Amino acid sequence: MRAWGDRVDEAQIEGALIKALGSGVVAESDRAVVFHDMCLLRDRLQHLQSEFPPRTLHAVAIKANPIVAILRALVEQGAGLEAASLEETALALAAGCPPERIVFDSPAKTVAELHEALRLGFVLNVDNFAELARIDEILATSSTASLIGLRVNPMVGAGSIGITSVADGGSKFGVRIDIERDAIFEAFARYDWLRGLHMHVGSQGCDLDLFVRAASVIEDLYTEITRRFGAERVAFVDIGGGLPVEYTAADKPPSLTEFLAAMSAAVPSLFDGKVRLITEFGRAVHSGCGFAASRVEYVKGFADHELAVIHLGADMFMRPVYLPEQWKHRFLVCDCHGRIKRGARKRYTIGGPLCFAGDLVARDLELPAIEPGDFVVVRDVGAYTVSMWSRHCSRGLPKVVGFDADRDNALQVLLRPETPADVVQFWGGAEL
Amino acid sequence: MRAWGDRVDEAQIEGALIKALGSGVVAESDRAVVFHDMCLLRDRLQHLQSEFPPRTLHAVAIKANPIVAILRALVEQGAGLEAASLEETALALAAGCPPERIVFDSPAKTVAELHEALRLGFVLNVDNFAELARIDEILATSSTASLIGLRVNPMVGAGSIGITSVADGGSKFGVRIDIERDAIFEAFARYDWLRGLHMHVGSQGCDLDLFVRAASVIEDLYTEITRRFGAERVAFVDIGGGLPVEYTAADKPPSLTEFLAAMSAAVPSLFDGKVRLITEFGRAVHSGCGFAASRVEYVKGFADHELAVIHLGADMFMRPVYLPEQWKHRFLVCDCHGRIKRGARKRYTIGGPLCFAGDLVARDLELPAIEPGDFVVVRDVGAYTVSMWSRHCSRGLPKVVGFDADRDNALQVLLRPETPADVVQFWGGAEL
Repeated sequence: MRAWGDRVDEAQIEGALIKALGSGVVAESDRAVVFHDMCLLRDRLQHLQSEFPPRTLHAVAIKANPIVAILRALVEQGAGLEAASLEETALALAAGCPPERIVFDSPAKTVAELHEALRLGFVLNVDNFAELARIDEILATSSTASLIGLRVNPMVGAGSIGITSVADGGSKFGVRIDIERDAIFEAFARYDWLRGLHMHVGSQGCDLDLFVRAASVIEDLYTEITRRFGAERVAFVDIGGGLPVEYTAADKPPSLTEFLAAMSAAVPSLFDGKVRLITEFGRAVHSGCGFAASRVEYVKGFADHELAVIHLGADMFMRPVYLPEQWKHRFLVCDCHGRIKRGARKRYTIGGPLCFAGDLVARDLELPAIEPGDFVVVRDVGAYTVSMWSRHCSRGLPKVVGFDADRDNALQVLLRPETPADVVQFWGGAEL
Repeated sequence: MRAWGDRVDEAQIEGALIKALGSGVVAESDRAVVFHDMCLLRDRLQHLQSEFPPRTLHAVAIKANPIVAILRALVEQGAGLEAASLEETALALAAGCPPERIVFDSPAKTVAELHEALRLGFVLNVDNFAELARIDEILATSSTASLIGLRVNPMVGAGSIGITSVADGGSKFGVRIDIERDAIFEAFARYDWLRGLHMHVGSQGCDLDLFVRAASVIEDLYTEITRRFGAERVAFVDIGGGLPVEYTAADKPPSLTEFLAAMSAAVPSLFDGKVRLITEFGRAVHSGCGFAASRVEYVKGFADHELAVIHLGADMFMRPVYLPEQWKHRFLVCDCHGRIKRGARKRYTIGGPLCFAGDLVARDLELPAIEPGDFVVVRDVGAYTVSMWSRHCSRGLPKVVGFDADRDNALQVLLRPETPADVVQFWGGAEL
């Protein structure tokens, strides 16, 4: 089993790409391909399963990577799935996930969605008091197998990346511990079906101290609720997702062992195995498992260096394109057979295929000499890349290929590429 | 006919929303709906058709709004369509556009795509010299009905919004006039099938002076090519898109009449009707025609004011969410029947439904009191909103409804909403 922090390395990238090209799994018509290491994915989940208390439900965040074949692999190994929308609960069901392992989080659940979730028995994390009141009204005339928790904003402050930080006063999620603490206890007093606590501090850009302080707030609530309402009242504590991962050498994320040691020391009553924990890791499960390889279509002058035009841009790399200071990836260059190029480096900007000037995936970095027909490989793209696919310029979603070291490095098409006909149908061409 | 700069006004928004809700065209299950004013759209095109020289081909940028029913309305009125990808050429064909009115621009055209475009007879704008060489190789063994032009970067500088400015040295598009001027003439000498010139200065954030200076560069090239290679050599001059539009009261875009007066004065030989002009307006055609209406799901505390949670976020409003200083919209609040709310204003942040903290569509603005069940209306969303739809959190694309003042305000569903099953299929759920 590979270590928790391991990512697909250069030799594995080269091996998968050469094999995919040589075997025809990647065809000449594939302008770009995304790869996912299914073996590493299973190892990541196994790390979570072996290092957390045994009854923990690891509900992997679907929004990080919603490809059904990938979700299915996680579910088959015992994972749950965290759904940020009703559509994501449908993805979880399609992947074979039992309803009691589907955790439905959304800050905008409609009454119809709540009915559906309660009918099917998903775990629900409730965002606010109005949503609690809606559920109470539904449960007045129906029963449910759902476990229901309340999302609490622990107000421990924001991480370094504002858009993925959710534990300060300007967060849109949950009820604030600082001004709603009494109201939280009142809710537990009023709603006997309220059985869980949910927190989330955000992901990339948050350090370990932020987690520990947030968990301490939740432990304090847990202790008080147990004292007031009995030892069995809290059926689960959902500590959310958000372990940061390494995208560049400057990132120094904590290891899983460090994370668990810090949490066990700081909030022992949440990690002693008595209360069921739920996690919602997404980026930490998927990020290092994936890479994208795009053919280089053209190389041309750009400012005082060169531009390599590839077939993935803001349609897949929305955050690196729009917020390049906050979101960066590492790059490799491979030749047309998939072999990694070494040797003297030159300065390149990597341009996407979309028709707007800002569609630059990376600016002014040093790479071995790039020629048309080469591949530019973007590393660590397993999470929040394909999943954020945008229709801007209506290019088809690329092929997604799984590779598996445990199964003789077998290649498997996880998602076929979209055709122009698929895109036409998406925009109403076939049916209207 | 409405004036060029007219946008859907408050009374029209209210009228369309009330009718759509009352008639059941918008159902309780529609969390959000996008509207498009088909009458205003036709008026916009008619302005272009009547104010430009008669033979001008107005190739509306598909990337601004790729809904096939909307493209079809434009094509039926004589418009062409500008495609930024091969997939967009398929959309154009699905909308019934004749190939000779399809303008294929992409900075990343593959050899296979060039074959296809030349076989079908699209107008092609070539991005760089390597692409010219590829075409020459293809045409050595085949013929084509395509008109082919070369994109020139006129190097007149960038507008105020970097990501949509394409006429400086850090642009990824075209060949630079300052260092490639001689090579452009050599290309015309070598390739007798090269018959056009293409420029583009970008759109939002560019002022009239930038257009005029860019057009002067192109006129100079046009004059010199005509002198060297004959009066018939240049079959078209494509002046691109990019008329900025008004999103907020601070925007003061030029009118179409001002634009044409300035261009005719500055570059008379391009506007005297002798050479065929092509335009590629997208934002200017669509922007004011559309609005989006989302139900308000929850209202809750947020920093020192309130948050209204709606059903459209960074999945549709990528740029306003990620680059809020550059991209802003105006808002209205309507009650559950569609009536515009007036009266005392409070401070609100408008939050989207996606599960990340930064999913805020607008921050800290003053609006009439908002309650759950109301509609938040986002104005001027006809362009670069639905078209950029992102899968982040996998929520289904909302219903798109056309309304038409010329046809008794008839409502027409232009695009049905995506179901959870559609989303499951997108991510490979049905087939693998």
